[in-house]
Amino acid sequence: MKSRKNQLPEQMTAIRQHEPGGALKIEKIAVPHPGPGEVLVEMEASPVNPSDLALLAGGYLERSYPFTPGLEGSGIVVEAGSGLFPRLRLGKRVACSPDQGGDGTWADYMKTSAMKTAPLPKHISPEQGSMMLVNPMTAMAFIQLAREEKHRAMVNNAAASSLGKMLIRLTKSQGIPLINIVRREEQVDALKKLGAVHVLNSTSETFAAELKQLAEELDATLILDAVTGSQSSILLDAAPRGSKLIAYARLSGDPILANPGALIKEEKEIVGFQLGNWLHSKGVLFKLRFINSVKRQLDGELSSTISRTYPLESAEEAIAQYREHMSDGKIILKIGSY
Amino acid sequence: MKSRKNQLPEQMTAIRQHEPGGALKIEKIAVPHPGPGEVLVEMEASPVNPSDLALLAGGYLERSYPFTPGLEGSGIVVEAGSGLFPRLRLGKRVACSPDQGGDGTWADYMKTSAMKTAPLPKHISPEQGSMMLVNPMTAMAFIQLAREEKHRAMVNNAAASSLGKMLIRLTKSQGIPLINIVRREEQVDALKKLGAVHVLNSTSETFAAELKQLAEELDATLILDAVTGSQSSILLDAAPRGSKLIAYARLSGDPILANPGALIKEEKEIVGFQLGNWLHSKGVLFKLRFINSVKRQLDGELSSTISRTYPLESAEEAIAQYREHMSDGKIILKIGSY
Repeated sequence: MKSRKNQLPEQMTAIRQHEPGGALKIEKIAVPHPGPGEVLVEMEASPVNPSDLALLAGGYLERSYPFTPGLEGSGIVVEAGSGLFPRLRLGKRVACSPDQGGDGTWADYMKTSAMKTAPLPKHISPEQGSMMLVNPMTAMAFIQLAREEKHRAMVNNAAASSLGKMLIRLTKSQGIPLINIVRREEQVDALKKLGAVHVLNSTSETFAAELKQLAEELDATLILDAVTGSQSSILLDAAPRGSKLIAYARLSGDPILANPGALIKEEKEIVGFQLGNWLHSKGVLFKLRFINSVKRQLDGELSSTISRTYPLESAEEAIAQYREHMSDGKIILKIGSY
Repeated sequence: MKSRKNQLPEQMTAIRQHEPGGALKIEKIAVPHPGPGEVLVEMEASPVNPSDLALLAGGYLERSYPFTPGLEGSGIVVEAGSGLFPRLRLGKRVACSPDQGGDGTWADYMKTSAMKTAPLPKHISPEQGSMMLVNPMTAMAFIQLAREEKHRAMVNNAAASSLGKMLIRLTKSQGIPLINIVRREEQVDALKKLGAVHVLNSTSETFAAELKQLAEELDATLILDAVTGSQSSILLDAAPRGSKLIAYARLSGDPILANPGALIKEEKEIVGFQLGNWLHSKGVLFKLRFINSVKRQLDGELSSTISRTYPLESAEEAIAQYREHMSDGKIILKIGSY
């Protein structure tokens, strides 16, 4: 076990949840130490993502309680467990995510597999770097999926989110038509200024009819559904024959609703998407190329706008702010004193 | 145009529906005549199937109104349009189904494509023959699907239906474990007497837990869902990682409900199944082999128990009886005076 610091503290501040849906507590817990193949990251920054909200609500990923939330972040590797890979990371600024079922990034330190870290280019700030793994890779995965399955156009119903804005930029540069769905009229103009061509407001009375017409015109057979609930049913009914709906978050908090007729007579299907599962299905070479391609676009198509930062201790407030103003930009927890 | 009879009547009795969900009317309408590639079948028998209920409720298949229901039946080809194929069918007893969007089997005569008819072996009665196309082919299609996608075991939640009983016999002879779900305790024993090994009662308090344990033990990753509504969600949550739910009817009348977590974190998916769509995706040789294999098993694994017959004019009563006693056996409309 190699350490960059002679003295790591014995205790650290961590945000902890004790039951699904329970309040977040600020606690002092022991600093963990890395085992074989693992590293200890001194955390610098971590965003609040929709997947964090799902995780905190419970039912999104298997886990035991209490645990530390936070599904991605950035920081400096300050201690390495045995193995070449951990040692190569020592002293590096990395983007990082927790091991499956492991404690997360909302703490002074996180222990994770060295495989779950990726060195950050020098010109990328800790804040931008903290958002490299979830949204940019998910956006790129959706583009990859559309290509692999030969979908001519896509629909996304969380168009004003950070991920939504990345998709607007990516589909524009890749020439894939995207139907953007928002919930407020001012978002229509905001997204059009960003370069979006097709923006529909789901609160409009003519929404379902407009969506149906546009989806047929563009042959938009890949539907990215971050909302679920009754909107899944509207999206499926409006989609052309043979469409695939990918549920990737549940911002409504409601289960998926689907008219069996749409599936039975029009050969539509519903699948889930989780970045870890998707990457797991790919080979090592694909993953390396994929991550490098994400890194290259981090300060371009795949950058995120930061609306506000909060200290780690204000995680509850940060989450409340994020829930209310999700489309204003990312909320970042700044950790430690870098 | 060749006709077996010198004199076909000008008018016939037909059951007609004038709007989705509307009442069935007994009407006198003109006897149609076959065009190129078509035949006229003098109907003898037609079953009431779950797909008829879905069709009558609306939203299952596209169609214009008024129309004649009835998605399969048997009868004698009494008139042939131009073409070799129609002429070869003249005078034969056939199983038949209507063309997409065309008038159905609940009438004295049905005009349909010769391609939508299959000659019946001599030893098969008009009643058994009238049930050849929907249930036997659907049951065989599910077995085929399980093989193609390498599912080790299956779940069916309409286990006491005719299709369910065929699946019990077929999976037994094919060595594929099947978890049968019923809604009444007496059905548990009835199906076990038929040879079913695993039968669960969905009204039991321990149903979800029992299903989960059994599905994991057997690795039952193919779920046949004829009920939908909240039961879809229970089935999906209980299913092993990577399972596929196939919606093939909606006996509950409710939309599919699904927990996005099951799809997102456990890579489960939901698709629809409609026999016509499925067959359409297969080659001609496969179809011929498939139909012959169905015919060979019509008086064995793929036979149906008939609980009662009604004259065509009592279609409403026949449907009411079927809804109430679906698991007692098939209800057959007897047409004409054969």
